[in-house]
Amino acid sequence: MRIVSADTGGALLTEDYEPIGLIATAAVLVEKPYRTATLSRVKYANPFDYDMSGRQAIRDEAFLAVELAREVKPDVVHLDSTIGGIEVRKLDEPTIDALTITDRGKEVWKDLAKDLQPLAKKFWEETGIEIIAIGKSSVPVRIAEIYAGLYTAKWAIEYARKEGKAIVGLPRYMKVEIRPGKIYGESLDPREGGLFGEIEAETEGIGWELYPNPLVRRFMVLEVWGE
Amino acid sequence: MRIVSADTGGALLTEDYEPIGLIATAAVLVEKPYRTATLSRVKYANPFDYDMSGRQAIRDEAFLAVELAREVKPDVVHLDSTIGGIEVRKLDEPTIDALTITDRGKEVWKDLAKDLQPLAKKFWEETGIEIIAIGKSSVPVRIAEIYAGLYTAKWAIEYARKEGKAIVGLPRYMKVEIRPGKIYGESLDPREGGLFGEIEAETEGIGWELYPNPLVRRFMVLEVWGE
Amino acid sequence: MRIVSADTGGALLTEDYEPIGLIATAAVLVEKPYRTATLSRVKYANPFDYDMSGRQAIRDEAFLAVELAREVKPDVVHLDSTIGGIEVRKLDEPTIDALTITDRGKEVWKDLAKDLQPLAKKFWEETGIEIIAIGKSSVPVRIAEIYAGLYTAKWAIEYARKEGKAIVGLPRYMKVEIRPGKIYGESLDPREGGLFGEIEAETEGIGWELYPNPLVRRFMVLEVWGE
Repeated sequence: MRIVSADTGGALLTEDYEPIGLIATAAVLVEKPYRTATLSRVKYANPFDYDMSGRQAIRDEAFLAVELAREVKPDVVHLDSTIGGIEVRKLDEPTIDALTITDRGKEVWKDLAKDLQPLAKKFWEETGIEIIAIGKSSVPVRIAEIYAGLYTAKWAIEYARKEGKAIVGLPRYMKVEIRPGKIYGESLDPREGGLFGEIEAETEGIGWELYPNPLVRRFMVLEVWGE
Repeated sequence: MRIVSADTGGALLTEDYEPIGLIATAAVLVEKPYRTATLSRVKYANPFDYDMSGRQAIRDEAFLAVELAREVKPDVVHLDSTIGGIEVRKLDEPTIDALTITDRGKEVWKDLAKDLQPLAKKFWEETGIEIIAIGKSSVPVRIAEIYAGLYTAKWAIEYARKEGKAIVGLPRYMKVEIRPGKIYGESLDPREGGLFGEIEAETEGIGWELYPNPLVRRFMVLEVWGE
Repeated sequence: MRIVSADTGGALLTEDYEPIGLIATAAVLVEKPYRTATLSRVKYANPFDYDMSGRQAIRDEAFLAVELAREVKPDVVHLDSTIGGIEVRKLDEPTIDALTITDRGKEVWKDLAKDLQPLAKKFWEETGIEIIAIGKSSVPVRIAEIYAGLYTAKWAIEYARKEGKAIVGLPRYMKVEIRPGKIYGESLDPREGGLFGEIEAETEGIGWELYPNPLVRRFMVLEVWGE
């Protein structure tokens, strides 16, 4: 099975570990044995001007996933939204009303569906590939989250080269290591069966430190500085 | 403390990782230091004709646990049902109505209690041993789940010898390794403190691969084939 | 960031692993990189005469944390109570009524606030340091919990010297090792990013064993005896 998925994660933090805004949306192609990505793409956000309601994230994820899926023709596309594995192209108003989610969640999805339902319908008509809102149950969605963390580290390196220093929060229970010419990362949850990722990056002249975010258990902070 | 417990797990999967039916109910005797089983028994189900409502599982577990308990005379029997550690022999209608579970759960338990309450009462009268519905809090229940995974791997080997290949899903966050003459397995959750198991099996001429189930995070897939 | 926190944990158990009462409240000073404590203090309870309602614990934690905070002047004090990170000095009746917690929780907090709100207000007026009820999200609170486990092990050694033997339950998913002259402990959850602790203790002539509590998954039992 070949699966494309996308997820958004990584946040620029203040010195007091308060989140300013999210940094990276990653789309990945995941193939058997489903432990890492064969291909990845990133779209960076502007953390200083970020809509924290969550709608920007899911929209960015859908468009980036479709872009990668057009290229690699997977069997299915997984989005990180827990509305029960439903096909996004079928999300009309009566279907959303019938979902067992909160009224607030229904309003959000009615708004989102205006963009995403036509996108999914068009993509399905052209390729036969379904986009499903499967959420946290999907391993490819988790791998996309790990890649969002890798690209967040890459963004932090570039930011530190310009501004001297960056403090970013990684997605949930993952770590990164900045190695010569690349950034490696892996899940800290062994129950996930060994999920990891790696991207290329210019890492010369960069110092870094990784440690637990004291205010948010199970999330790590990455500090990066120019040496 | 000597505890007998039972649990059901492991599923035959399609090539697309859709579950067809459950495979193995395991009963185990667990003794101090409570990390593995001293003894184990299995009852295989027919995954192609399986009642997925959950009632078949709990009934099979109770009968298999009592069978093992008659033999080894433990201090107590643990069943995997989260109704608050109640003694099964006391499960009459008023007691079930007083449980803080859903109305649907009450209906299921009223039905189940028809078989299980007399079983537990008779067993207690004959041996003085209580059967308690303790659920996921019990370590012996988790060890029984790990053994259900081991027997699922054994079933997969036998199925692959006949049919060429088997794809099975293991119980939650556990792994198995097929070694010469035996199958070893362990929990992938280090918070559980090192739970593991081992059973004998004919493993010659068998190839295998273990990887994350892409559709169900924290569950592993085992593929087995004749070489 | 320098954070003082406190937590209570560790229980004396019967031979059947039933809890008798809690043992240790620990306060800790945690500094970057937030993986262990720079300083720790303990207040032992009497497990044979323990108020299991939870009010004794939170009161002991607040007073012990303030005692340590007077000494080390941290940036903030974290208490293990999940009422949304609110400042304790602001906990008057209308504020408690507006919390999104159960009615029972509100009654408990109205009672607790009688002692804790004046304590927090006085401490803030004198030092400018806030005491916040941040709960499980705080890494320093988890480190305090690990230290409560370390002091529980120390208590068990002293109890075993007098009574011959002690069986104690440690806080959730942590382990301890009794080494020459000290007790080492660490979290068993790798998602927390490597939290650990160490205290000095007289450990000569002591035997010990650590194993999973069969009745409470993810909690370990420590047995200690004089050799």
